[in-house]
Amino acid sequence: MADLELIKSLLIPHVVETKIVFLIIDGVGGLPIEVGGPTELEAARTPNLDRLATEGLCGLHDPVAPGITPGSGPSHLAVFGYDPLKHLIGRGVLEAVGIDFPLTEQDLACRGNFCTVDEKGLVVDRRAGRIPTEKNQELCDLLRRHVNLPGAEMFVETVKDYRFALVLRGDGLAEGLTETDPQALGAEPLPVRATRPEAERSARLLNDFIAQVRQVLADQHPANMVLLRGPSKVPTIPPMQEVFGLNPAAIASYPMYRGLAKLVGMAPLEAGTTISDEFDTLEQEWGNYDFFYLHVKKTDSYGEDGDFEAKVHLIEETDEQVKRLMTLHPDVVVVTGDHSTPALLKSHSWHPVPVLIWSNYCRADPTRGFNETECARGALGRIPATDLMPIALANGLRLAKYGA
Amino acid sequence: MADLELIKSLLIPHVVETKIVFLIIDGVGGLPIEVGGPTELEAARTPNLDRLATEGLCGLHDPVAPGITPGSGPSHLAVFGYDPLKHLIGRGVLEAVGIDFPLTEQDLACRGNFCTVDEKGLVVDRRAGRIPTEKNQELCDLLRRHVNLPGAEMFVETVKDYRFALVLRGDGLAEGLTETDPQALGAEPLPVRATRPEAERSARLLNDFIAQVRQVLADQHPANMVLLRGPSKVPTIPPMQEVFGLNPAAIASYPMYRGLAKLVGMAPLEAGTTISDEFDTLEQEWGNYDFFYLHVKKTDSYGEDGDFEAKVHLIEETDEQVKRLMTLHPDVVVVTGDHSTPALLKSHSWHPVPVLIWSNYCRADPTRGFNETECARGALGRIPATDLMPIALANGLRLAKYGA
Repeated sequence: MADLELIKSLLIPHVVETKIVFLIIDGVGGLPIEVGGPTELEAARTPNLDRLATEGLCGLHDPVAPGITPGSGPSHLAVFGYDPLKHLIGRGVLEAVGIDFPLTEQDLACRGNFCTVDEKGLVVDRRAGRIPTEKNQELCDLLRRHVNLPGAEMFVETVKDYRFALVLRGDGLAEGLTETDPQALGAEPLPVRATRPEAERSARLLNDFIAQVRQVLADQHPANMVLLRGPSKVPTIPPMQEVFGLNPAAIASYPMYRGLAKLVGMAPLEAGTTISDEFDTLEQEWGNYDFFYLHVKKTDSYGEDGDFEAKVHLIEETDEQVKRLMTLHPDVVVVTGDHSTPALLKSHSWHPVPVLIWSNYCRADPTRGFNETECARGALGRIPATDLMPIALANGLRLAKYGA
Repeated sequence: MADLELIKSLLIPHVVETKIVFLIIDGVGGLPIEVGGPTELEAARTPNLDRLATEGLCGLHDPVAPGITPGSGPSHLAVFGYDPLKHLIGRGVLEAVGIDFPLTEQDLACRGNFCTVDEKGLVVDRRAGRIPTEKNQELCDLLRRHVNLPGAEMFVETVKDYRFALVLRGDGLAEGLTETDPQALGAEPLPVRATRPEAERSARLLNDFIAQVRQVLADQHPANMVLLRGPSKVPTIPPMQEVFGLNPAAIASYPMYRGLAKLVGMAPLEAGTTISDEFDTLEQEWGNYDFFYLHVKKTDSYGEDGDFEAKVHLIEETDEQVKRLMTLHPDVVVVTGDHSTPALLKSHSWHPVPVLIWSNYCRADPTRGFNETECARGALGRIPATDLMPIALANGLRLAKYGA
């Protein structure tokens, strides 16, 4: 894998602006739902993607490493060209980013769960009976009014059901903190401990928060306590402008993906609610950026639901929009997923992800369709996801020669 | 990638001497010149290479990394088994090596350009109107006679047109120096700065050189000044004898490639002027070495010219000679390029390079021809170029088992 410093050193100041599009169909890789049957991609009718596969170059990518099932954070970072083992995004930051909370460099973010404790203070339900979101909002409001942390600004924000995000803002807040979730029933919530000296003050603030919460929520059974996970700060990821010389934009309707894109420097554009809306935005903003990340979310959701047919249908819906993309005359198109989400497994999986690269200089291979079987015989081979961005930049004629 | 220390530790002291040949067809990888057409290799009739591909194992290699377009220095080092990101060859050293200048460990080499400055000393032509080589020789002679650097021996050698090589020889010369080329018109040449303390003296010497040159060339419009680039010392690369246990020779007609081969310990043999001459040498020297690097240069030159047909023809000419190679009964033959140079792009490119490995133990795959499409489906897969040497040594039964 070429490292970011190498890529940066080879960037050609763009005299000619070539346009690169990454169409990420979330969780697109799949498995046959019955032995010998087709995968979701193989079952779908995708004439437009098949045309790109025919004219382009296909392969498979591993988001993190062979055998590793990635979360959405690492898998997206990898597809965007960042080593997912080096650039870590904490759970707290992902949760805050996922509700479009505008994190700053000063912030320490945690994922919070409302939970139930018994009279001895032992956890009896880690999710507080999955309280409804409305109750969650009520409780967050209660905490906002009654918890007071001297020396830090505090934000308590509802996510969904029993989940909320806690953000502390102030000078000198640091990472290196343990979680309070004992991950077992009948155990006491753990105190936050600093694993690095510079995080001592943050640990005290979080323990102070928990102590006050215990009192404020005492009468709120079943949501009479909270558990904090993944205290983390916004990672310092060098922006795509700097390391890839791009002026990038994100078209993603789900906040977490917009947030991830913002973390690497992309401008978040209005994405609407349908796949067609996203391509409307692409057409409208075509002149304003040279890199577009388009995100199709529901393929992953249907995969997680185990709904093979719905995932197939959504792939077909995406395929129809690809026609519109090609009429814009992009220079480089990359179509792939951030990971596989086979309906058979109802979850993200470790399977390498089909990818196609289309450009005038891609060296087309004999593949004739965009699916797991065709991509496995593609000339791109099986590559780490982090190779996609350098290959896309090369196809956009944006990288100079290395060495004389 | 296996590292050099590992390979070295596994070398079997050669009781039986197996012979390995690397036939490097420079820039051999290509692209279709028109959509759906053949690449240069696919257009060429190559019955002998196709036979080797049929009997052997095919694949694609990345000289530096996917998406990275390599210069000839890094790409050759990689094919020879050396990590091209670790072993860097400076521009100055390559320039000196390219005119067969016998560099020593004491030398600091720079690439020089004659340029034109106006009365204020600002650069108005970075190439001095591309003066003819004869004029260059005259000017180098002038500099040799009138520039005097106390404490260092000085060599000023014509390369071609406006280019020359400057070599300073002395104790304590060091790398870590900036270039004087402002890379823009209307700007003054920059002074050389040391970026490391041990290079201070070298910086002073180069600045002294430039100050004297300015006076000596004052009346020589348009070549009335020089610019220096890539001040560098001969890299310390462990020789192939030591790390690969080989007694290697190079058959390359272009000085730069002979020079590169010498840097890794190869004996430079007389290569003549034609491809057939190179195979004459191979036959004559067959008994004297156990590793031969044969270099075919003009495939790259024709690629850079955009001359698809001439590149095809030269591939065919090379193919004819392969018959002669096989009558020598080599143990291992590797045929590949150092990088791709598609006529379509008229330059080196990032595309992975077709490679075939032939030996009695290579585990033949179903590929039937030596070209991009066949190699993409080869069992060797897509590998870093640095893997080729260990695989070749293994096929030559020269590596012992790792671990018990």
